[in-house]
Amino acid sequence: MPSSYSVPAHLIDAMVRAALDEDGAADDVTTRALIEGDHWGRATIIAKDHGTVCGLPVAAAAMAALDAEVSFDTLVADGDRVSAGTELADIEGPFQSILAAERVALNYLQHLSGVATLTREFVDAVTGTRAQILDTRKTTPGMRHLERFAVRCGGGTNHRFNLASGILIKDNHIAAARQRGIEDLSDILELARSAAPIGMRIEIEVTTLADVRGALEGHADIILLDNMAPDDMRAAVDLIGGRAIVEASGGVSLANVRAIAETGVDFISIGRLTHSAPALDISLEAGLA
Amino acid sequence: MPSSYSVPAHLIDAMVRAALDEDGAADDVTTRALIEGDHWGRATIIAKDHGTVCGLPVAAAAMAALDAEVSFDTLVADGDRVSAGTELADIEGPFQSILAAERVALNYLQHLSGVATLTREFVDAVTGTRAQILDTRKTTPGMRHLERFAVRCGGGTNHRFNLASGILIKDNHIAAARQRGIEDLSDILELARSAAPIGMRIEIEVTTLADVRGALEGHADIILLDNMAPDDMRAAVDLIGGRAIVEASGGVSLANVRAIAETGVDFISIGRLTHSAPALDISLEAGLA
Amino acid sequence: MPSSYSVPAHLIDAMVRAALDEDGAADDVTTRALIEGDHWGRATIIAKDHGTVCGLPVAAAAMAALDAEVSFDTLVADGDRVSAGTELADIEGPFQSILAAERVALNYLQHLSGVATLTREFVDAVTGTRAQILDTRKTTPGMRHLERFAVRCGGGTNHRFNLASGILIKDNHIAAARQRGIEDLSDILELARSAAPIGMRIEIEVTTLADVRGALEGHADIILLDNMAPDDMRAAVDLIGGRAIVEASGGVSLANVRAIAETGVDFISIGRLTHSAPALDISLEAGLA
Amino acid sequence: MPSSYSVPAHLIDAMVRAALDEDGAADDVTTRALIEGDHWGRATIIAKDHGTVCGLPVAAAAMAALDAEVSFDTLVADGDRVSAGTELADIEGPFQSILAAERVALNYLQHLSGVATLTREFVDAVTGTRAQILDTRKTTPGMRHLERFAVRCGGGTNHRFNLASGILIKDNHIAAARQRGIEDLSDILELARSAAPIGMRIEIEVTTLADVRGALEGHADIILLDNMAPDDMRAAVDLIGGRAIVEASGGVSLANVRAIAETGVDFISIGRLTHSAPALDISLEAGLA
Amino acid sequence: MPSSYSVPAHLIDAMVRAALDEDGAADDVTTRALIEGDHWGRATIIAKDHGTVCGLPVAAAAMAALDAEVSFDTLVADGDRVSAGTELADIEGPFQSILAAERVALNYLQHLSGVATLTREFVDAVTGTRAQILDTRKTTPGMRHLERFAVRCGGGTNHRFNLASGILIKDNHIAAARQRGIEDLSDILELARSAAPIGMRIEIEVTTLADVRGALEGHADIILLDNMAPDDMRAAVDLIGGRAIVEASGGVSLANVRAIAETGVDFISIGRLTHSAPALDISLEAGLA
Amino acid sequence: MPSSYSVPAHLIDAMVRAALDEDGAADDVTTRALIEGDHWGRATIIAKDHGTVCGLPVAAAAMAALDAEVSFDTLVADGDRVSAGTELADIEGPFQSILAAERVALNYLQHLSGVATLTREFVDAVTGTRAQILDTRKTTPGMRHLERFAVRCGGGTNHRFNLASGILIKDNHIAAARQRGIEDLSDILELARSAAPIGMRIEIEVTTLADVRGALEGHADIILLDNMAPDDMRAAVDLIGGRAIVEASGGVSLANVRAIAETGVDFISIGRLTHSAPALDISLEAGLA
Repeated sequence: MPSSYSVPAHLIDAMVRAALDEDGAADDVTTRALIEGDHWGRATIIAKDHGTVCGLPVAAAAMAALDAEVSFDTLVADGDRVSAGTELADIEGPFQSILAAERVALNYLQHLSGVATLTREFVDAVTGTRAQILDTRKTTPGMRHLERFAVRCGGGTNHRFNLASGILIKDNHIAAARQRGIEDLSDILELARSAAPIGMRIEIEVTTLADVRGALEGHADIILLDNMAPDDMRAAVDLIGGRAIVEASGGVSLANVRAIAETGVDFISIGRLTHSAPALDISLEAGLA
Repeated sequence: MPSSYSVPAHLIDAMVRAALDEDGAADDVTTRALIEGDHWGRATIIAKDHGTVCGLPVAAAAMAALDAEVSFDTLVADGDRVSAGTELADIEGPFQSILAAERVALNYLQHLSGVATLTREFVDAVTGTRAQILDTRKTTPGMRHLERFAVRCGGGTNHRFNLASGILIKDNHIAAARQRGIEDLSDILELARSAAPIGMRIEIEVTTLADVRGALEGHADIILLDNMAPDDMRAAVDLIGGRAIVEASGGVSLANVRAIAETGVDFISIGRLTHSAPALDISLEAGLA
Repeated sequence: MPSSYSVPAHLIDAMVRAALDEDGAADDVTTRALIEGDHWGRATIIAKDHGTVCGLPVAAAAMAALDAEVSFDTLVADGDRVSAGTELADIEGPFQSILAAERVALNYLQHLSGVATLTREFVDAVTGTRAQILDTRKTTPGMRHLERFAVRCGGGTNHRFNLASGILIKDNHIAAARQRGIEDLSDILELARSAAPIGMRIEIEVTTLADVRGALEGHADIILLDNMAPDDMRAAVDLIGGRAIVEASGGVSLANVRAIAETGVDFISIGRLTHSAPALDISLEAGLA
Repeated sequence: MPSSYSVPAHLIDAMVRAALDEDGAADDVTTRALIEGDHWGRATIIAKDHGTVCGLPVAAAAMAALDAEVSFDTLVADGDRVSAGTELADIEGPFQSILAAERVALNYLQHLSGVATLTREFVDAVTGTRAQILDTRKTTPGMRHLERFAVRCGGGTNHRFNLASGILIKDNHIAAARQRGIEDLSDILELARSAAPIGMRIEIEVTTLADVRGALEGHADIILLDNMAPDDMRAAVDLIGGRAIVEASGGVSLANVRAIAETGVDFISIGRLTHSAPALDISLEAGLA
Repeated sequence: MPSSYSVPAHLIDAMVRAALDEDGAADDVTTRALIEGDHWGRATIIAKDHGTVCGLPVAAAAMAALDAEVSFDTLVADGDRVSAGTELADIEGPFQSILAAERVALNYLQHLSGVATLTREFVDAVTGTRAQILDTRKTTPGMRHLERFAVRCGGGTNHRFNLASGILIKDNHIAAARQRGIEDLSDILELARSAAPIGMRIEIEVTTLADVRGALEGHADIILLDNMAPDDMRAAVDLIGGRAIVEASGGVSLANVRAIAETGVDFISIGRLTHSAPALDISLEAGLA
Repeated sequence: MPSSYSVPAHLIDAMVRAALDEDGAADDVTTRALIEGDHWGRATIIAKDHGTVCGLPVAAAAMAALDAEVSFDTLVADGDRVSAGTELADIEGPFQSILAAERVALNYLQHLSGVATLTREFVDAVTGTRAQILDTRKTTPGMRHLERFAVRCGGGTNHRFNLASGILIKDNHIAAARQRGIEDLSDILELARSAAPIGMRIEIEVTTLADVRGALEGHADIILLDNMAPDDMRAAVDLIGGRAIVEASGGVSLANVRAIAETGVDFISIGRLTHSAPALDISLEAGLA
């Protein structure tokens, strides 16, 4: 089931217009050569593989942006699981416009459904554990709102939106602080807390159990265990003992995500949800009305 | 070796500025809390896996857009093959700016290098055959210029840029023509030729040998064999006998691409080059200068 | 009769909004001084000269963009021939808005109708010959989609949309190739063919019969006879003998276009269709409703 | 001699970037096929006809926007009269970029020089009279700043920039006022004066001597004689006797402009300066450096 | 009563969309956490202080831009005086959207009502005198159209829109002219008149009675008395004797505006109307429907 | 002293260009009439009142955007306290450009310095207490980045940037939850915590001591005491006893801010810092160089 909250229509509208321009939809030479302006068409969008759907309102917006006369009826909802052959939407309107917008609509739908599908696989893999699946800032430029929505459609949870909406002290921050003589994580955390926006928790990335202890001394709100072995993660979870939220990251795959989840971490963040999800195969079949 | 021609600077500049805004780089609360404005930093971008690099000028532009004082020296060139551990670029400048632009720079670099790397694998797989590897319009919205460049960096060849720059008569066009009583492919081709821009060849998608014959009768310039079995492809290539360019598409994978190439087709177009390429793992290691 | 395919609404909408802002329609000091906000008005757009109309949807969009309450009923269609006095459209709505948008609506309508009218004159002048009238890339910046549509409304045919959608080897390309030692046109054509997008024919510009022979040896798809005398053109057409499409350009006027057409060329491209077409005289007559 | 004041660089820059995108300069398939990225070129822009030049900084900006490495040296200045064969500018830089930006540079240069040339012809035609040549709001959408500059380059004078920067009571305003029972021009002028911005003179359009009397009674600052016969104009000028500025408009051509000027009017406004000026023939000749 | 003419919808729409993006309305984490997407809400906008309202259509546009399903019924009109407790508008729609757009709607409403309220206080203070209250170009960047409308809602009058729509010779212009040897104001005025757009009156800023004399000799249309003492102003008004419009400016406050008005000046321009107006206290009270 | 981190140059550049266009700087008719293009000028920006400066880089950017030849040397830094008569910056360059950009530069400088000055007054008023002065989301649309920077220049602290970067449960959220049967603040807080982004603390607005108790039971991270009397605030601070951060808001003025601070709250948030700060009086004095 998708989140109760999606991406505002005006942002989607601006995106699909830019995509239609990029794809030359204003001058589809093939369609213009073969289809007349008064030909009416019908089309069906069909999943060619099983997965979790995301992006139907974006596909609808692509059709509507090119031609307000095109109607778009969704047959499933974003977040629904579908099998190969499931019909996702019925489309009707000027056939030139349907064909000229087809690729843009499918490019969004395939990519976002790909993200939702991969997220769903990770979420299913950790069923029964306390771990939630988190996205990262490793998104496709220009797509963050949509990709985060796709993660929610797949049952995942969103991490901070961007640099302005969360504190995360990473290896490069720690290294720089230490070069300035601020050696202990607790001092680094103290410095961050004194300067951070009041509404934000302090998260810090660690790679060793020693660092976990430093983070606890510094009263870190969230401790990110980066690239640690499962045994070390379990030891870290024990050490933390509920005094901080625990997030794991680094090299997470479908093969090892359950093992990580079973260490007792609260969250597992996975860059590949957004940077490496293969597209879900979806096609549009059309004809004159 | 990359193409001799890349994407104009003003387009890259506009893209990275939008991406920096999306990532909240103007208000990086973590960096502001821990790093002072006059701290100078150095960073190195490092490949964590082997592959083909693409996007270094985009990464450089992301740094420069946020802060003109950041210098960016590339150590390899777009299109170069690298191994895990290869240093790609040295960066120096205000440390706040380097950290605030890091993620945007890496997001572009990882995605484009992913596309280049996957393309290179397909290109290598068909070495010695006449087949060239082609991209498709199945690109990430907003990224077409860059992803096409990445395909060239990987040794691939670009198909038409968009709907306005090439004729491709697909299944939906043919179905619609037939609904109007234009049954034969040769008649459909004739209609297209009479209406097409004068500078464009006529490409048509076929799925059977019978259709290949129709396409030849209609003097198609390019025949796209879609989702045909290798044996049928070979028969089609023989039947065409050089009278048209032959492109193959549909379900192409690293496992079957060589078999397809060996049927004698001229081009193999592969959507997954751009819609499903996993990111190449690349990181930035930094410290105070 | 206009083409079956026009310019997408969202592009027209963006253009007219920018034009309204340029014209200060948000602050029409004269209208504000003399007309009240609740005054309702009616207006008629009238041709003051005979010609071919183009741009009525653009004029309608200008009115609608400023004020959604303005209705715009077209009385003729784009591409129709009109005489002086023909009423083109009836408008009704808030009178302030009609007057504030009047100039923008007319500026588009007069310019595009000017292009359509001039095109129609050239098309009529070659009636009965095989020659089609082509536009060029010599368009007004920002107006290419609309001007190409106007050319179609006038019975003309569009050449390539832009640099990305067609191959045309011009004098400067040939000169550069020869400076690099690639002397023969056939070698230049071979180089272009090997690097060109697969879907594009190769067009080359020539000025002598010798060059025509070179172009034929190089299997040029289209030969552009630039600034050749009619006798030479006729000889070129004979020489080509159907082995390539023949386009003529350079110094084409209403006085000589028929002579050129009668040489047997397939296309005549004319820059002045878009860069020098005088506006068609059109006015708006209005009053309170 | 051009005006001492031109169009700000950031506006020109935004315009040429949009024009380069429209022309597909980012993907010039011909140039990419035939010219290597490291080929250096030289080019000269040459007038092919006599006229008055305008737009050299715009042409320079088009080259610079695509490639900062292109140098552009102007050999004449905007506003200079040139003869056929005059060299206008020398260009040097990456040859791909010169060719890819050529058409955009020339499109601006030819159009603006066309406007300047036509303006200059009208200005020359009224030499020795008191009349100044004025432009109108009948400009090409998106081009008003540049076309007004071109008018100044041709020796003309600019009328109000747009609806927000001047009061001009036209026929439609008068008709509407009369429908509301405000019959006399003097009352209409009084209403306008009471509501107009304090810094603006009141201009009113008239077509008869009776109206001229009404305008004078109403203390119009400027009286626009629209489409009046020269004898009536002369009578109007006498009647006005210096009590208002006198502007003439309507059907002004090179054939009749001097007769109009000799009636003693102060200004003659001419729509065709901007809406119907034929392009000046200008070309770019180039080769490898 | 507000002016009969307001700001075009497309400009307001563009402004509120940018403001919603700035405020992160696409990702309201609080609302998303507590309110479901299908919760319907009602809200009332209420004045918490007495004043003059302005901006209701802008507030409505903010709600509509985020969610077309939100209805917005205004209970008073822009320009109305309200007391603390007056209900300004009723809102109904998806509760998430109402809350996410609340702050943007109120920010516009409070600021514009603040400008209208302050303007109204100045206008009321000069009741019975001939003086009109004028705004200046000292507006908030990006807000000029709206702030000028707010001034009109408060009973004030707009001065020139911007640098392009009025002549105002200020101290720096005069100083520069004098450095060039043009000493007398009458000569400076003559120079300005010869070069100014024909539709514009000439306004000049003076600070002494001697300058007033110079301005009169130069036939200034409007004389701006800047920072003069009331007695000097009165003397200036007498000296001018109706031969020019008289505007006063500089250090105008509610304490001294009546004294200035009683000197007999025609206009009093006040920067603080737009640059220092405190916001009017307005709030939104909401609940589930 | 200003914060160590300011607003990125590309955002400032985009803002000043829009502001210059709004002000008609491309067509400054007064300056064009009186100043020649080759006149060189010098100017000094001078504070006319005492206060805290903010916005010098924005003023510099306005000059540079209009004309790259204008130099701008700052004589004080953002965040410095200045007295009436302090020179803030020296400017030199083409005099037309200095005058055309003057108003935009001053509009930013006066507004931002006004915000910084008012903030500084509040900060000074609470010296010696633990209270920090916070801004709110009650900013001028389009100005949030700059106004927040101005708050920092005045010694204040920034609250959350926008809806996406902090959780704040306000009266309307609570009312809606209670309508749904979630009565206790602790249950509302629990719901928010379960759905909130992991990196964010939970802040809740309360108005009574009873609510403070509920907030503590619900483990609120930050408790916002809204419009409470000082005695109640003090009681609330005692009750909270360090278990949550305490913020006060509502009706804060220079007259009562110290009393509020002395109740022991950690933060005092003040909308008027940004929505009602009067502009600081700053002028530009200029002449020919």
